[in-house]
Amino acid sequence: MNILFIMYDQLRFDYLSCAGHPHLHTPNFDRVAAMGMRFTNAYVQSPVCGGSRMCYYTGRYASSHGAHWNGFPLRVGEHTMGDHLRRAGMDCWLIGKTHMKADSEGMERLGLSPDSIIGARQAECGFDTWIRDDGLWGQGPDGFYDEKRSPYNEYLKGKGYPTENPWATFANAGIDDEGDMASGWIFKNADKAANVREEDSETPWLTTKAIEFMKEKTGPWCAHVSYIKPHWPYIVPAPYHNMYGENHVPAPTRDTVEREDPQPVFGAYMENKIATAFQRDEVRKKVIPAYMGLIKQCDDQLGRILEHLEQTDTLKDTMIVLTSDHGDYLGDHWLGEKDLFHEQSVKVPMIIYDPRAGADATRGTTSDALVESIDLAPTFVDFAGGKIADHILEGRSLTPLMHGETVKWRDVAISEYDYSATPQAVKLGLAPRDARLFMVFDGRYKLMHAEGGLRPMLFDLQSDPEEFIDLAKDSTRTPEIDVEIDRLYAHLFTWARRMSQRVTKSEDDIIAMRGRSLRRGILPFLADGTEVPEDLTQFYTGKAKADYTGER
Amino acid sequence: MNILFIMYDQLRFDYLSCAGHPHLHTPNFDRVAAMGMRFTNAYVQSPVCGGSRMCYYTGRYASSHGAHWNGFPLRVGEHTMGDHLRRAGMDCWLIGKTHMKADSEGMERLGLSPDSIIGARQAECGFDTWIRDDGLWGQGPDGFYDEKRSPYNEYLKGKGYPTENPWATFANAGIDDEGDMASGWIFKNADKAANVREEDSETPWLTTKAIEFMKEKTGPWCAHVSYIKPHWPYIVPAPYHNMYGENHVPAPTRDTVEREDPQPVFGAYMENKIATAFQRDEVRKKVIPAYMGLIKQCDDQLGRILEHLEQTDTLKDTMIVLTSDHGDYLGDHWLGEKDLFHEQSVKVPMIIYDPRAGADATRGTTSDALVESIDLAPTFVDFAGGKIADHILEGRSLTPLMHGETVKWRDVAISEYDYSATPQAVKLGLAPRDARLFMVFDGRYKLMHAEGGLRPMLFDLQSDPEEFIDLAKDSTRTPEIDVEIDRLYAHLFTWARRMSQRVTKSEDDIIAMRGRSLRRGILPFLADGTEVPEDLTQFYTGKAKADYTGER
Repeated sequence: MNILFIMYDQLRFDYLSCAGHPHLHTPNFDRVAAMGMRFTNAYVQSPVCGGSRMCYYTGRYASSHGAHWNGFPLRVGEHTMGDHLRRAGMDCWLIGKTHMKADSEGMERLGLSPDSIIGARQAECGFDTWIRDDGLWGQGPDGFYDEKRSPYNEYLKGKGYPTENPWATFANAGIDDEGDMASGWIFKNADKAANVREEDSETPWLTTKAIEFMKEKTGPWCAHVSYIKPHWPYIVPAPYHNMYGENHVPAPTRDTVEREDPQPVFGAYMENKIATAFQRDEVRKKVIPAYMGLIKQCDDQLGRILEHLEQTDTLKDTMIVLTSDHGDYLGDHWLGEKDLFHEQSVKVPMIIYDPRAGADATRGTTSDALVESIDLAPTFVDFAGGKIADHILEGRSLTPLMHGETVKWRDVAISEYDYSATPQAVKLGLAPRDARLFMVFDGRYKLMHAEGGLRPMLFDLQSDPEEFIDLAKDSTRTPEIDVEIDRLYAHLFTWARRMSQRVTKSEDDIIAMRGRSLRRGILPFLADGTEVPEDLTQFYTGKAKADYTGER
Repeated sequence: MNILFIMYDQLRFDYLSCAGHPHLHTPNFDRVAAMGMRFTNAYVQSPVCGGSRMCYYTGRYASSHGAHWNGFPLRVGEHTMGDHLRRAGMDCWLIGKTHMKADSEGMERLGLSPDSIIGARQAECGFDTWIRDDGLWGQGPDGFYDEKRSPYNEYLKGKGYPTENPWATFANAGIDDEGDMASGWIFKNADKAANVREEDSETPWLTTKAIEFMKEKTGPWCAHVSYIKPHWPYIVPAPYHNMYGENHVPAPTRDTVEREDPQPVFGAYMENKIATAFQRDEVRKKVIPAYMGLIKQCDDQLGRILEHLEQTDTLKDTMIVLTSDHGDYLGDHWLGEKDLFHEQSVKVPMIIYDPRAGADATRGTTSDALVESIDLAPTFVDFAGGKIADHILEGRSLTPLMHGETVKWRDVAISEYDYSATPQAVKLGLAPRDARLFMVFDGRYKLMHAEGGLRPMLFDLQSDPEEFIDLAKDSTRTPEIDVEIDRLYAHLFTWARRMSQRVTKSEDDIIAMRGRSLRRGILPFLADGTEVPEDLTQFYTGKAKADYTGER
């Protein structure tokens, strides 16, 4: 049995036809949804690439593993999906992006070399690396954003693309009317075809790598096939660049009421460069069709993978997971990118095909349970036949839901966001430790708590599914609202007190410890020695050892 | 400059003459107090040996490092006092007890051998080991409580004590009237002289080791001289065994009101074997004089250390810290041992002599600031001239207090207790993760929160300094009390949300990151490219790379 854990980057939950998109047709995503279960309330534990992924890969909340944001190293020794799966006898491979930053200081302190197997796994977030490419080869006066080497750039160079950074100059750039490079960084170029052969673009390239992996490796394996797309730069090669146009761009989900006395963090985000750009209609009209084209390409490439599984008759042995690390505002709520906790950002697609017979009853159905991204790691351990280390893994296996069992699920989904390194923290004058947000969502009410003395936000998704009306504003707050806010805060408090770091002793270990010291001679309660059974007393009674021969 | 970080085990805050004990005269403790500052409100972060010590040694709260209880391994890679001090150019040595349990699973996963320097430090809580002896060589049908070897037992054997476990049969046993061994485990034997030469007993033995260390090592060093005494077994060699008698035993600090409708965890502890024993007057009358004798011996041995420092003229270069890992109920509150949050258990002696001139103004004074045991690690880093890694260390350097600065200190002291492995958890039917307590103390009100759905406790130490009246009981609770409970819970909530795991990025690191991705070519906000200065644009403009020669 194998696991294909496929992640797209920045794929919104609602940009799939199975999730109701009116224009985008994604038959391969839909096919997996028809074979499996689609979770309609799946939330990431941090709506930013690095933080979210470290939650997926550790099965733990961001404040448990501490790697809250892009470029914050995952501390050495933190248990990962790979550690758990290997203990269960399943390999765990990476094909694509993780956004992992190695804790090189910690590794050096422990004498771990990245060249050793152990060191490499520490540096690569617990994965064995088939191929790693994080897909962000941005370059500026201070050098590359990502200082590693890019296998994808090497591939392009090998194919004859004649620059030092063909990712930037070909795969993510078009050509303008004058024959000059039209960079995909610039939104006005988003409708151009990327200046790259379609098969040489990132999504097909990685798909080919994934198929090569599947051809070569025997299982059991978990393969994390992790695409950079549809993440920006928003530009896609032909024929995807003009499959969608202005007529497929929905009106932005935004309301002027959102700009009135906004919660300060929301206010700061609405004024940042990205948001300002996405507030312009011409940006959305260029970007969204490109974003859709990128997703359409992902869907076609998913078709290649499914075809491979069919041809090799391995569909029956392979769990398939389709998900994303976060969404994309695309101008909704006056915002671009991700970062905050509106559905567009924090909710992700989550489609799981479980090949086991136990899942037959739920094939093609949806579940509205409050699923968290950290549920995948225990789901995989479960699928691999391992014992879930629930003193380390904070999520829950989704198997019972997929197998049609009636189980009480969690009361609230939690997400966290650390914006300490952003211009918004500077603007709000916040020290890094105060630039943090928490989401508590019970399926109806969604609370955002902000550290640093800033007020919370609250949405009622039942009466306001578009999340326009912030009920925690002075102007809308009522005693009834306060009750809901207090209730969600109580959930946050319970969660904040959770036992998250007792990772060296399982619940079973502790139960086995109970009373053990008694039979190892720890007896600080004997008034006269009659308090314990005789087999214990032999260790502290008997003739005095008066045969002592040393000096006294 | 060196640091002598001396810890006694289970030494109550009020069993020193400088702390007002009416009968026990401890001139050497008093002398250090007169040379330095005595902190009268010093609280440990967990009132149990292992948990408390891991807080001291990491400078972090128990729920931050996860090693909550005796025998719970400290996770591999956790930063320790030794790591911080070595970075500041100071060695960090252990002479005595730590109660550290190595994370052998984690070490094996990272390929660390305990035989290597790095591995040994991981296994020994970050210390270099001069000598380690945890001083609990209890033995029973299932073997030794502590499976390591005991240097102290080896020493006794070398001196001719003729048993396999002379710790148990000589150093912690007397002889009864029939000439039989009278074990120190049995309280009725506590008034007998331990059957060991005084100089061979544990406290002088370890003192000799400490002096040997100081003679051999040049600094800068921090030496953790960590005595097992006055911890049980309560038995002490002559002449200390009969220095104190029944007339020196105070009446127990307890009240029948405590037994009426007690908070369930307190209730369960009051009924355990240890408490039941200490509720008997004859136990207290035997044990407390022995406990005092053990402390008197500690004081005399402290005198040897001070004398050595004087003789070598190093008193002027040596910070001296005298503290404990927790107290001892000794029958107060109907309890024995430690574990809960009454002052007798959670408050510790904390005396610091700072040789620097900056401390001259405060010599011989006391401070009632709410000091936490985790404050020592940053105090030491500060003293060593290092930069305090305040994204890892959760305490605060005490230097400003010792140097007479007027600084706002913390609002509340926090302590935690994990009793998941105890009979009390079994009695209350609690899963390990629910058997946890938290203390929040603001200097007047002390709240105990209990997980597992149990009610809190509240004491007002201003009106009830003896902590008899639990204001959170139904019978005493009032709306005014609820206000205080809510206020302390709000402090606990703030604390529970603290940023404790972001250990790979300092506040300064994060501030330096702000805006850095821009100059590394991450520009997902360019509508038309005019949004950034020209030195950034060169990386995404220019002639199209139309000289591509590969297949298209």
